[in-house]
Amino acid sequence: MNAIQSQTREIPSHQGHSVRVKGYVQAIRDLGNIAFLVIRDAVGTVQAVVEQPEALQLAKTLSQETVVDLEGTVVAQSKNKEFEISVTRLKILSTPAETLPVEISKTVKVDALALNTMLDYRPITLRNEKARAIFKIEAELCAGFREFLGSERFVEIHSPKIVSTGTEGGANLFPIDYFEKKAYLAQSPQFYKQIMVGVFERVFEIGPVYRAEQHDTTRHLNEYISMDFEMGFIESEQDLIALQTKLLSYMLERVAQKCEHELSMFQTKVPQFQTIPQLKLSEATELLATKLGWTRSDVDLDPEGERLLCQYFQKETGCEFVYITHYPASIRPFYAMPVTGDPGEPVLSHSFDLLFRGLEVTTGGQRIHSYQMLIESMTNRGLNPEEFNDYLQCFRYGMPPHGGLAIGLERLTKQLLGLPTVKLASLFPRDINRLTP
Amino acid sequence: MNAIQSQTREIPSHQGHSVRVKGYVQAIRDLGNIAFLVIRDAVGTVQAVVEQPEALQLAKTLSQETVVDLEGTVVAQSKNKEFEISVTRLKILSTPAETLPVEISKTVKVDALALNTMLDYRPITLRNEKARAIFKIEAELCAGFREFLGSERFVEIHSPKIVSTGTEGGANLFPIDYFEKKAYLAQSPQFYKQIMVGVFERVFEIGPVYRAEQHDTTRHLNEYISMDFEMGFIESEQDLIALQTKLLSYMLERVAQKCEHELSMFQTKVPQFQTIPQLKLSEATELLATKLGWTRSDVDLDPEGERLLCQYFQKETGCEFVYITHYPASIRPFYAMPVTGDPGEPVLSHSFDLLFRGLEVTTGGQRIHSYQMLIESMTNRGLNPEEFNDYLQCFRYGMPPHGGLAIGLERLTKQLLGLPTVKLASLFPRDINRLTP
Repeated sequence: MNAIQSQTREIPSHQGHSVRVKGYVQAIRDLGNIAFLVIRDAVGTVQAVVEQPEALQLAKTLSQETVVDLEGTVVAQSKNKEFEISVTRLKILSTPAETLPVEISKTVKVDALALNTMLDYRPITLRNEKARAIFKIEAELCAGFREFLGSERFVEIHSPKIVSTGTEGGANLFPIDYFEKKAYLAQSPQFYKQIMVGVFERVFEIGPVYRAEQHDTTRHLNEYISMDFEMGFIESEQDLIALQTKLLSYMLERVAQKCEHELSMFQTKVPQFQTIPQLKLSEATELLATKLGWTRSDVDLDPEGERLLCQYFQKETGCEFVYITHYPASIRPFYAMPVTGDPGEPVLSHSFDLLFRGLEVTTGGQRIHSYQMLIESMTNRGLNPEEFNDYLQCFRYGMPPHGGLAIGLERLTKQLLGLPTVKLASLFPRDINRLTP
Repeated sequence: MNAIQSQTREIPSHQGHSVRVKGYVQAIRDLGNIAFLVIRDAVGTVQAVVEQPEALQLAKTLSQETVVDLEGTVVAQSKNKEFEISVTRLKILSTPAETLPVEISKTVKVDALALNTMLDYRPITLRNEKARAIFKIEAELCAGFREFLGSERFVEIHSPKIVSTGTEGGANLFPIDYFEKKAYLAQSPQFYKQIMVGVFERVFEIGPVYRAEQHDTTRHLNEYISMDFEMGFIESEQDLIALQTKLLSYMLERVAQKCEHELSMFQTKVPQFQTIPQLKLSEATELLATKLGWTRSDVDLDPEGERLLCQYFQKETGCEFVYITHYPASIRPFYAMPVTGDPGEPVLSHSFDLLFRGLEVTTGGQRIHSYQMLIESMTNRGLNPEEFNDYLQCFRYGMPPHGGLAIGLERLTKQLLGLPTVKLASLFPRDINRLTP
């Protein structure tokens, strides 16, 4: 009878049967007449016991990360009731040219030095089960984002990343030599997703965005994955807040279901919630200053303020998310829809941030859809509307009330899994000091 | 009773009921005591008949692309049995600042001049029902790609687009100013998807890629969407060919099911197939030269050769796809796995292209997984292995036999829908002459 081709995680269901497993030799223990191998495949590990003479001879030549193809019988260990493979055939598919320069079978504590080594050897250190689990979880977050929005009539788009102008008027752009022209890497799909609201009413995009800020922090990347959506015919930013609350709940529920094994490697619980508390930015800063011992009093939140607010709301409401609304228009982009308010008061905007476990993960809001109002907003900020002529087309010829938001995939993942830095949530992170691997 | 919120396409199912529709005024016919509006929303159009005095007064002020919110009763026209809305309430949500500079309600024939105008006014011309249908179909192709590969244990990845070296040794790269360092836009996720085979065994990515070729043709874009997969533990390129055949069949079947309305706007039939014919490149060129009247005899195919071959195989086998295999290693990248052949004969490779209706849409193949063989292959081509040190890490420490492929989304779509140029299959195309909108 032929052996059953099996992944390591399915081994227990084949007790007593012959299975075939392909993977990497993660660890070897040679006791002379018997050798124990830990075999790692795409989803987990299994122990293989080698006593059969030919296989044993071969096993003694193996080094870590040798790629093997083996067959054997699934047996239950009497000791700990785990399943292992009693090897009947062992074949080498590929032999490493050198021994491993870093330990990848165990989880290493991530201090600054370890982080740099881990990232320098990223093609290898990603093979660590916990390191790669992060990206299996990200894949499911993305799939959940698309599935939920698809079911809400959103259409996926692909906007260009080579652009001729920035969304904010020129700051923090990476310049590109585009033949003889001046071009930049897109900071966000903002203009394009708004344009596409005029076409499909509801659109989403998951793609890379670029910020040329001189960062080397635990919360910034110069290239990151932005999960964007934009929708037409909204009444206010509350429509976006309500939709995102359902969206996040769906995405996290999917991860809880599909990534039980991966989540178990992290000290985390996937948050469950029906609603998310909201407060105005002015209320948030007052609460921080008067009750939460905030050391830096300002009109906007800083990292400390974000942490203190989340701590407070988790204690008070049990919810690990908080929406901050009503940002002053002056600290939001020109396209943020202003709130009609009292004359003489600072102009607020229909915009919001979402904080999760102490960190901003989403920024969004209702946008200006009136052509005249947009031109005024640009002019007030010293921007030249002529430079935004292509963007302005859709407003010139009719746009519905609309708005949207962007979730930072790596930030959401960092907060969900309690990672020390957002860099560990990017396969090959880019920062001011790191352009490789 | 409240009106039923409805999309235009669902209107027929609400005959006799009151519905609420939000959309754009695509056309207006004012006959004095009665006005007819064509309302377009995200999925289609519907005719609205306005006789109610207040609504009629308002209707007379409307211009094309005014955004409206209306209610009315669904009635069947006696004439052609189509359904229309007899308007009871009309509200303007947003008024255009200017009249439309281009016709968007009808399908214009695409000659060179029309193409440029169409692309200059892309934010508006994408509102044309046929223009936007292309992107609804692309969204479903992407969803099908992900869904099929997800069910085959592939994990989605996001590789960096800012890179320090090209995959081919430096040609056709867009340079970026990355702080003080030399950087480029990624030509393909090639190196990263191979690295990730060492981590997840099977991976896929849909993302932008960049080629700094001085193109302005009907088959090239400088920024396009590449649908990549890469898988470990293959026997040969035939595993990839077999998987892609099933994958394409799944993707196209999904489009046929989900996009019936959109497909009906194009003179096309979605191809159905179980297997795809294959022939070696040497057989293809011989067939072309001896039987198909090929004017340019060469070792590789040119656009004419691709067209003639597809015509021939469609006639002979009924299949609109053809695999071309066994490309000489010398015209494939350094990482292509060579075929063990007779000494003295030119070295062939385990690589292939897929042609669809006369155009190459996929390139793929088995890759070299031996570190020593890779170093040799690089050195033979005058490449410096030290410049590829990060890529080489995974091979130095053990990689399984593997391979993969990349499908060009815009090319696949162009061929499926019979578009005159690939530019119409890109929302905001980039070529040597076009960086905007």
